[in-house]
Amino acid sequence: MGPLRLGELHGSLTDPVLAAMEFLNEIANRYPEAVSFAPGRPYEEFFDVQDLHRYLRAFHQYLVGEAGMDPRQARRTLFQYGRTKGIIHELVARNLAADEGIQADPESIVVTVGCQEAMLLVLRALRAEPRDVLLAVSPVYVGLTGAARLVEMPVLPVRDGPAGIDLDDLVARVRQARAEGLRPRGLYVAPDFANPSGATLDVPLRRALLRVAAEEDLLLLEDNPYRLFGSTDDRLPTLKALDDDARVVYLGSYAKTGFPGARIGYVLADQPVDLGDSRTGPLADQLSRLKSMVTVNTSPVSQAMLGGLLLEHGYDLAKANLREIEVYRRNRRQVLDGLAARLPDAAELGVRWNSPSGGFFIVVTVPFPVDDPLLEFSAREHGVLWTPMHHFYGEGVPLPHLRLSVSLLTPERIERGLDRLAAFVSQRVHSGPG
Amino acid sequence: MGPLRLGELHGSLTDPVLAAMEFLNEIANRYPEAVSFAPGRPYEEFFDVQDLHRYLRAFHQYLVGEAGMDPRQARRTLFQYGRTKGIIHELVARNLAADEGIQADPESIVVTVGCQEAMLLVLRALRAEPRDVLLAVSPVYVGLTGAARLVEMPVLPVRDGPAGIDLDDLVARVRQARAEGLRPRGLYVAPDFANPSGATLDVPLRRALLRVAAEEDLLLLEDNPYRLFGSTDDRLPTLKALDDDARVVYLGSYAKTGFPGARIGYVLADQPVDLGDSRTGPLADQLSRLKSMVTVNTSPVSQAMLGGLLLEHGYDLAKANLREIEVYRRNRRQVLDGLAARLPDAAELGVRWNSPSGGFFIVVTVPFPVDDPLLEFSAREHGVLWTPMHHFYGEGVPLPHLRLSVSLLTPERIERGLDRLAAFVSQRVHSGPG
Repeated sequence: MGPLRLGELHGSLTDPVLAAMEFLNEIANRYPEAVSFAPGRPYEEFFDVQDLHRYLRAFHQYLVGEAGMDPRQARRTLFQYGRTKGIIHELVARNLAADEGIQADPESIVVTVGCQEAMLLVLRALRAEPRDVLLAVSPVYVGLTGAARLVEMPVLPVRDGPAGIDLDDLVARVRQARAEGLRPRGLYVAPDFANPSGATLDVPLRRALLRVAAEEDLLLLEDNPYRLFGSTDDRLPTLKALDDDARVVYLGSYAKTGFPGARIGYVLADQPVDLGDSRTGPLADQLSRLKSMVTVNTSPVSQAMLGGLLLEHGYDLAKANLREIEVYRRNRRQVLDGLAARLPDAAELGVRWNSPSGGFFIVVTVPFPVDDPLLEFSAREHGVLWTPMHHFYGEGVPLPHLRLSVSLLTPERIERGLDRLAAFVSQRVHSGPG
Repeated sequence: MGPLRLGELHGSLTDPVLAAMEFLNEIANRYPEAVSFAPGRPYEEFFDVQDLHRYLRAFHQYLVGEAGMDPRQARRTLFQYGRTKGIIHELVARNLAADEGIQADPESIVVTVGCQEAMLLVLRALRAEPRDVLLAVSPVYVGLTGAARLVEMPVLPVRDGPAGIDLDDLVARVRQARAEGLRPRGLYVAPDFANPSGATLDVPLRRALLRVAAEEDLLLLEDNPYRLFGSTDDRLPTLKALDDDARVVYLGSYAKTGFPGARIGYVLADQPVDLGDSRTGPLADQLSRLKSMVTVNTSPVSQAMLGGLLLEHGYDLAKANLREIEVYRRNRRQVLDGLAARLPDAAELGVRWNSPSGGFFIVVTVPFPVDDPLLEFSAREHGVLWTPMHHFYGEGVPLPHLRLSVSLLTPERIERGLDRLAAFVSQRVHSGPG
């Protein structure tokens, strides 16, 4: 048959966001020797293949022990099709209690194939008509933008401002959207050490955001994969923990606090849905119905891995990640100190960076526009990779910012990478405008 | 906040197909003591939890052996994010060669979270505009209908007729759709022991279908999860094996030939896509890009399970399933013989059934309409469950057919179930019209 034409396939396939994500992956493959501050992957030095066997055994023990299954039921649970909402929902609820002080009804949890599927299910549920739109604090994680493209839901940016979200801009955007006949269904927000900005909302701002959401009748879609990776003794409450009105849909990821290869995420969606005939059920039930059409159910073998990990650590992933938390703290410090040491004249050069107190990301501002060709130049000529920030704004316009991820590198690699990064920045600054 | 209204969420959530799927699940839970000829689950008596540990070890051994990875790379492959198209694509290609004689380029394969995600990706790619529609041989697997609803792609039924597909009806439907301004993008078809009809297309009809697809410029979406479960020595070639024009997208499932709990499927999509600038790439690459927005990648731990299973059996799942093939043959025989023995006057009663030579399903025709309340009656009064066939037609009109699945039951349960089923049918026949 003749070739299919890209333009006759779904529009998301010609979206610049997708091309950008691929370019970033592809360039890392093309320059394998480069030091990469690009990927937001968790630190991997502590992984051990024996962990997987141990997690599986621990979860099987739980099934035939606390869960009260006979060996046949336990075997069936691991091998057969299973409950659409998942089989580790009780353990996820205990984890939310242990780490976040959130008392979640396990029936309001859907275990998903990573947080990506959770985002897709929520957006698919909310995007009922072409007038349905999503708001998102900008810059925004590209996975959210991708899920929105897949269900053809426009994403309207809300300014982050210095505090992490500009509530005046939020209200203005909502009202403007409504005036244009659009129906804003929710706001996507990452309150702690956001990807890519590193921003964290303080508690008064979290409360104010909840108030605005109630006044404007918006759902808040809270995504918070990095929040354990800050100070261990003064974590701020999640929006969900402050939410006494079922206003927050909590998007859960275990990719950073567990491991990405399990592809286990979840969504806590306790919003009541009117089913008619005076019946209501949690939004989670509707997301589960959508999930039956996307992946049927999340692999019970993968769930067993996360379930075993949760059991092994008493559901407390903050404690389970003490070593990782320390690595990320050390790496952030090393990058910040290393930038200062290597660029003592940064202020005169017009170079600056933020200092997030947690998470994986640091944003460097430079006195020149940062685009993909410049990244390629940096990789080729200086052997260092990073992420152009403009990709997180969903627009093609280069911005004078680049994102550094500090999560994956060892101290030696960081030193080498900073040498190269400083050389790249200095050369660009001194090569004049262009 | 006030309750969300179901009518303000995505339209698929109020679709009768979804409600029907849930009713069928729910009734099985309500009557746990009933003998169930309902679920299309594979036989589970041969599963053993130790298998999972062995598969994982075998796949890890493959990574550090044949795949040439050092231990760090192997560990990273299992624990981290990974290749969007999957990590067992080479093994899947060898499996296609061993079982089907299909020589597939591994780069044209996307490993998916079950066949459900494969269907969703293909339909999402093909449904670019509201005029894009899918054709499907009717009755059709409800998972296909569900995926289509999720991407708002209408499914136009094509008559199966006595041969498994009525090509005249196919052509008429395509032309009528085009006359109405619609754009038929493909035909979904299950050529071997289809769910639910049990129908198998003979080889001349397969060749004729490929000719019609070429003439009408249709893609064929071949779904063939049951084909190994027939005679072991005269399997017919798949449509994909007969396809020398990249006309067939092959939807792969390991839920029946491996095990459902891995949630591993795949799609072989070697159709060239024109990317502009004289570049082409396989459709698989576009499906991979969509997958990055749905589940990012399929769990490498789950892939390791199927990979290990494939390695352990030399990629030959027909051989790996010899015991299961015999169980399904025995069960089909037992149900067919048992129906004949219990309903010797079937012809006079207006009761008959088909005799598929493979697969999981038998269709019983009865002289009364079969709907959900009747299923509930059968469960409550006779302790036997089955599936009303009208659910596979995507319409609410009761039909005089019910589907029996023979895959999960032991011989003793089949005997008991047939006693109950015969009592139910006899009672309904003799209770007169209603």
